[in-house]
Amino acid sequence: MPQKRNSEDIYKQACEVLPGGVSRNTVFRKPFPHYADKASGCYITDIDGAERIDFANNMAALIHGHAHPAILNAVIDQMRKGTAYTLASEIEVAFAQLLCNRAPVFEKIRFVNSGTEAVMAMIKASRAFTGRPKIAKAEGAYHGTYDFSEVSQTANPSNWGDVNKPNSVPLAYGTPEGVLENVIIFPYNDIERTIAILDQNADEIACVLIDPVPHRVGLLKGTNEFIEAIYQWTRRNSALLVFDEVVTFRVNYGGAQEMYSVQPDLTALGKIIGGGFPVGAFAGRSDVMKVLDPRESKVLFPHSGTFSANPITMTAGYAAMSMFDKDAIAKLNALTEKAIRQIEDVISLADVPVSITGAGSMFRFHLTPTPPTTYREAYQTKETVGVINELLDYLYFNEKILMINTFACMFSTVMTQREVDRLSEGLLKAFRLMKPQIEKLQTS
Amino acid sequence: MPQKRNSEDIYKQACEVLPGGVSRNTVFRKPFPHYADKASGCYITDIDGAERIDFANNMAALIHGHAHPAILNAVIDQMRKGTAYTLASEIEVAFAQLLCNRAPVFEKIRFVNSGTEAVMAMIKASRAFTGRPKIAKAEGAYHGTYDFSEVSQTANPSNWGDVNKPNSVPLAYGTPEGVLENVIIFPYNDIERTIAILDQNADEIACVLIDPVPHRVGLLKGTNEFIEAIYQWTRRNSALLVFDEVVTFRVNYGGAQEMYSVQPDLTALGKIIGGGFPVGAFAGRSDVMKVLDPRESKVLFPHSGTFSANPITMTAGYAAMSMFDKDAIAKLNALTEKAIRQIEDVISLADVPVSITGAGSMFRFHLTPTPPTTYREAYQTKETVGVINELLDYLYFNEKILMINTFACMFSTVMTQREVDRLSEGLLKAFRLMKPQIEKLQTS
Repeated sequence: MPQKRNSEDIYKQACEVLPGGVSRNTVFRKPFPHYADKASGCYITDIDGAERIDFANNMAALIHGHAHPAILNAVIDQMRKGTAYTLASEIEVAFAQLLCNRAPVFEKIRFVNSGTEAVMAMIKASRAFTGRPKIAKAEGAYHGTYDFSEVSQTANPSNWGDVNKPNSVPLAYGTPEGVLENVIIFPYNDIERTIAILDQNADEIACVLIDPVPHRVGLLKGTNEFIEAIYQWTRRNSALLVFDEVVTFRVNYGGAQEMYSVQPDLTALGKIIGGGFPVGAFAGRSDVMKVLDPRESKVLFPHSGTFSANPITMTAGYAAMSMFDKDAIAKLNALTEKAIRQIEDVISLADVPVSITGAGSMFRFHLTPTPPTTYREAYQTKETVGVINELLDYLYFNEKILMINTFACMFSTVMTQREVDRLSEGLLKAFRLMKPQIEKLQTS
Repeated sequence: MPQKRNSEDIYKQACEVLPGGVSRNTVFRKPFPHYADKASGCYITDIDGAERIDFANNMAALIHGHAHPAILNAVIDQMRKGTAYTLASEIEVAFAQLLCNRAPVFEKIRFVNSGTEAVMAMIKASRAFTGRPKIAKAEGAYHGTYDFSEVSQTANPSNWGDVNKPNSVPLAYGTPEGVLENVIIFPYNDIERTIAILDQNADEIACVLIDPVPHRVGLLKGTNEFIEAIYQWTRRNSALLVFDEVVTFRVNYGGAQEMYSVQPDLTALGKIIGGGFPVGAFAGRSDVMKVLDPRESKVLFPHSGTFSANPITMTAGYAAMSMFDKDAIAKLNALTEKAIRQIEDVISLADVPVSITGAGSMFRFHLTPTPPTTYREAYQTKETVGVINELLDYLYFNEKILMINTFACMFSTVMTQREVDRLSEGLLKAFRLMKPQIEKLQTS
């Protein structure tokens, strides 16, 4: 290990060996990203000595903040017995039971290593079960880095096309036509248009992929009418309804899907269920999950993974999710609601056109007087992104508050009123300072 | 956690919540898999009390065996400071430097969470750099679970077609036509046919994907002539040569690519570089890796990942790969060579038609008097698989030896002559016992 230096120095070295000097675009920051020294609970300290409240929680992945002692101790015990085997482990069964008990539709579960792998495997399972090639997904929704699931993730006014039939816009340059033609795009929460679009591909759709509170669409809740309409469409057309709850599982004991009158056939999980370690999973109907069963004479979806269900992730996840019980969730969501109410007062006080969307322990700010209701409404111009970045920089440097770079907060169970007060006070200063710039956006 | 029970009991419970009762098909075993209790060095003990020598090393992922104290201590120190942040970390830069120093063509590196993600991202980077949709890969080669990279992984005589133009055979049922038509299949180590096949798609191939010692093809070394011919083809046709060294990086200090007179443009890594924790990475030419650079005005391949480059994996990987230096590799490869020589004597002594392929610290048995030279030669009939499973069962239950289910061994640095002797003695008994069955396969 090199001697401890400052972030700027390390970034210079990083640029020699990492493209753009970073391993994840999410941690990139101009002129240089900061390097973590240590983190504990809801506080994170960079190597330059600044301690911040962590409202990002590794992109919503940490539900108990950093270095929770119960998780730490369980993992250290397991580490002394090994981190990964070519044998099964008891803890994967215990953890599978724990998760399946949280939602009645989680009849069987398979673990993988990331949310990306979870969504990819869920899509492949849907194709294997139905024998159909296509998926349908919402414009703007983020579902990891599998190319099929990232189509139209960053669609913009120059390429998104007619809302009655949105274009399938590639995220990465060079995406094969064979990917784009197998991904149908619909406008989130727009029942009429979505059903019409699905109808045009009825015989070919393996699954409709839904994030119940899609972050990049605007952290808007899917309405019950919308989810129910899609569910009914999938019943009529022998397709599957599959949820991406990688981010949203934190919303309720059984995930955001508890909000609805209908339930998905399959659900992808990740983030918080790993207790701070790399994880993904997908769970759902036994008859669908059977495509994975190695005991079948013809395995429709052969699937393995070197680190899948490794006992470290399983141990950390088991510890984290045991603690994230109904009481803990109620307390966390109540604290988040209180924070939102305080911040709404702050917005009134600062008299800025700012609105809030979200669910459970997650919320996101929009620089509009009323919250957006669609991806195209939530879409931010370069000017808006610029003002948001200024707000985030002010909060980061002056108020020592770390948020997600979409101007969103993900709460953790170790937060208290103290952090909520610092957040609302910081936002009051930020909104007051940036009021002219925020107001100017409304007229442009 | 449930009370400690035996493997059969746990498996019964597992079948209620996991499809087929397992999280990875590789650990499945009839009538039930065994559950690990603990592992240390090169020994693994199941919860039924049987201790075995571990020649599988979590599918080649563990280069220092289990629970190595140096890795353990480094990881525990890091865990107390947090396992994952929305900030960068110093150790990712140090680890990137360490890996880039091992091979001159590793100019830049990006970390991901698994070998599957590494190959997927490498393919997407190749498409983004060239603007072309297709990849070419070897029949039978395993490259993870991204559907493009798994085409023809298990091609068999009923579907593989003419060797002059092998079919693109889907692995999972329901794989879209749009995937199959973008994957060109060639016969490994067959220069003439491969070049002819590549020529037919010259303008559309983004990259030729090569595992230099592909396990599922037969753990056959790619010949220098073959690799050089493909390299030259890619230079003539503005395509990339990309290596999958997820398994083979253990072969030399800079991976199996050190064996060749030409070098790949990009290389996927995984397994051992994680020090026992979930990992993947890909490394290579700066100008290609630039497609990931968030500082560019147009990012050709936007890419992120919640757990990518998490400080736990980086810390474990840094510790493991620091110890896996040139001396350690020379010692490990020499021990493996010695083992192979001893086993060749055992094969003579038992007078069985068995051959061995491999490289470095990896080798695989074939129930043929001379080693196969192509995937189609190495392809095993049901009868052969049956005899291999009997041999593996005998070794597992009677000799307390755990191997990979392809009848392969992956050595670790903590092994000694003692384990080599137990391996060769066990094999002698197994070959003698099964000699009639092995011989019968030759005539069928």
